[in-house]
Amino acid sequence: MTLDFAKSDGLITAVIQDATSGRVLMVGYMNEEAFRKTVETGFATFYSRSRKKLWLKGESSGHRLVVKEIATDCDQDAVLVKVDAQGPGVCHEGYESCFFRKLVGGEWTITDQQTYDPNAVYGGAQ
Amino acid sequence: MTLDFAKSDGLITAVIQDATSGRVLMVGYMNEEAFRKTVETGFATFYSRSRKKLWLKGESSGHRLVVKEIATDCDQDAVLVKVDAQGPGVCHEGYESCFFRKLVGGEWTITDQQTYDPNAVYGGAQ
Repeated sequence: MTLDFAKSDGLITAVIQDATSGRVLMVGYMNEEAFRKTVETGFATFYSRSRKKLWLKGESSGHRLVVKEIATDCDQDAVLVKVDAQGPGVCHEGYESCFFRKLVGGEWTITDQQTYDPNAVYGGAQ
Repeated sequence: MTLDFAKSDGLITAVIQDATSGRVLMVGYMNEEAFRKTVETGFATFYSRSRKKLWLKGESSGHRLVVKEIATDCDQDAVLVKVDAQGPGVCHEGYESCFFRKLVGGEWTITDQQTYDPNAVYGGAQ
């Protein structure tokens, strides 16, 4: 059984979940090479749709995602990657999880506290 | 702040997570109407990319997803929906979660037990 990269322009959806807490940390996309590198290196690697290139998560911040387990779904066009997240946060905006805004009374509301200063880590370049 | 439906042909990615156990149950896609219906009705509603139409999860099986919380990510093109899943399983193949296959020694391996008989629920039509 192989993954279905054809359905969505060569990409599958990758859900990144903290292996310990169960918190969903981010959603990224992988092409076949990114998936292969993720498996071979043990570090989550994505394909950046905006930059149109492979992206080792943590290559600039050092906040790598150490792969603990990979599952795929029934139609094989998504993977669930359980990780140990290195560093204080996965989100480049300074939060533990990219999902730091919740819908509260019809408004998107920031409900998390920042866990690090993104300017100190990314130097404003992100 | 609104969601970014433009980036991916009118769709955002929706990660469905069990509100109690934290297990990721499925990944679906929502267009703006599906997201609006999800919020308004309190039942997760998707856009089926294969059938090209709105899809109330559970409309044939009765296994609806009751929305408990919705979060969005930093670039607003994905949502994380925490749900109470009605019924024995979310996956149309008879499993609690669509992510019932894990990568074990380089092979995708079914690691879950079925929680219901999909033929009895979907009558083979799915």
